[in-house]
Amino acid sequence: MKIIRTVREMQFNRHHSRGFVPTMGALHLGHLSLIEASKRDNEQTVVSIFVNPTQFAPHEDLAKYPRPFELDCEQAQAAGADIIFAPSVEEMYPVNPTLIHVPKVSALFEGEKRPGHFDGVATVVAKLFNIVNPHRAYFGKKDLQQCAVIRKLISDLNFDIELNLMPTLREADGLAMSSRNQYLNDAERLIAPVIYRELGALALKLKTSQLASKDVDVCLLQSEKVLAENGLKVEYLSLVDAKLMEPTKVIDDNCHLIIAARLGTTRLIDNLRVLDSN
Amino acid sequence: MKIIRTVREMQFNRHHSRGFVPTMGALHLGHLSLIEASKRDNEQTVVSIFVNPTQFAPHEDLAKYPRPFELDCEQAQAAGADIIFAPSVEEMYPVNPTLIHVPKVSALFEGEKRPGHFDGVATVVAKLFNIVNPHRAYFGKKDLQQCAVIRKLISDLNFDIELNLMPTLREADGLAMSSRNQYLNDAERLIAPVIYRELGALALKLKTSQLASKDVDVCLLQSEKVLAENGLKVEYLSLVDAKLMEPTKVIDDNCHLIIAARLGTTRLIDNLRVLDSN
Repeated sequence: MKIIRTVREMQFNRHHSRGFVPTMGALHLGHLSLIEASKRDNEQTVVSIFVNPTQFAPHEDLAKYPRPFELDCEQAQAAGADIIFAPSVEEMYPVNPTLIHVPKVSALFEGEKRPGHFDGVATVVAKLFNIVNPHRAYFGKKDLQQCAVIRKLISDLNFDIELNLMPTLREADGLAMSSRNQYLNDAERLIAPVIYRELGALALKLKTSQLASKDVDVCLLQSEKVLAENGLKVEYLSLVDAKLMEPTKVIDDNCHLIIAARLGTTRLIDNLRVLDSN
Repeated sequence: MKIIRTVREMQFNRHHSRGFVPTMGALHLGHLSLIEASKRDNEQTVVSIFVNPTQFAPHEDLAKYPRPFELDCEQAQAAGADIIFAPSVEEMYPVNPTLIHVPKVSALFEGEKRPGHFDGVATVVAKLFNIVNPHRAYFGKKDLQQCAVIRKLISDLNFDIELNLMPTLREADGLAMSSRNQYLNDAERLIAPVIYRELGALALKLKTSQLASKDVDVCLLQSEKVLAENGLKVEYLSLVDAKLMEPTKVIDDNCHLIIAARLGTTRLIDNLRVLDSN
């Protein structure tokens, strides 16, 4: 009989490598880059397509969220997916479902603007992890706070899964790829790239000058003003530590600018690591 | 490429069977019967010994909970354990830990008397499931509400684990075996069996008579009075549906009497399926 005292030694040792890309479908090149990364790293790649109702608030876009399932399957297959997991809502949820709450990193920003959102994300991702049982999981950095929540979920609940956070893919004009971009009309689509341009200008300013805390806040407010002048309603624009998802004034490796803004009826989010600006 | 739509088909298929008996140590014959059941059913049996701080409320007996680790190891090995998992609290818990909440079945009885208890249980059991990765898990029916919480946890979060609920073991005089029985002094130890005797008498009365709802409540109150006369402080005594863990008046397969009572400073719980009384 053996006595084991560490989690690492205890974890089950699987033999075939399985990569996992959880999605809500409406796949774009960002998703496909995750599938390609999983295909490179693993013998088998599973892509889930599930528009998860519990991460939408009542007033949000659950009903109109795009669901081009057959096109998604074609694209996922072309990118290297071996299995699509596409359950129904009834297959996934019981009545009075068990809920997982990841504290602190989920409290501000998206967590504040979208109450219950990250409980829904954490719960469905834990379920999918148990169902798919992957070795590696792939998420896009566009959803930066989600990445922090999933990192803590994996660590806190001892999922034996390697988390891979992949770079945001962008359109030629800088707009972060998102399934929700298709909600934009032509005029809004022309305006939307100002988000990333302003993030870049702001990050460069923060990186190259030694600003006092007060001046960081002044810069953030100036950028909010620029965005408002372009017709964007900024929900938040903040300088954060990307692991803690708390505001910071210190420019270091973890330091990101994060933003959520409305353009017409469409809600867009983006982020930029300050040291990546140029 | 394959498209899968059910959880069952998606679950990872493991090849070596592993049974798991989660415990807080201070093993008694009840625990050993779980280990023996696991040994019968599986190629390998893992027993965890971890006094989980998050399932104790601040005023409870965490510090004085018995920890006879070496004796536990000897007994577990003799009963058939292959691996003991005995992590430290630091190995198990980060700061600001993620929390799992199983609603409804955890709300009343132990959940009401021990706020936060079942969140602590659900969270540590989910962590242990991820760490040990068992095919089958074994719990004792003495903790009836815990069994209901774990059943829903496994189902809601899609753990691919077969739950085995094993009968309560009793001393010759009927007292349910429990690590907390050693807190009883000699005089209390002589009184304690009245709990099970009264459950049996009450269950028989309920089973053999066609009682109206009002009369069920009268019988429950009469039993509380008998127990009080014996020096027990009853925290709850209720007729419940063991799956829903809600009060019921209907005598069926699921129907149990459950009780928590204090004897001196020791808190004892027990239960009896009504149809099992004789």
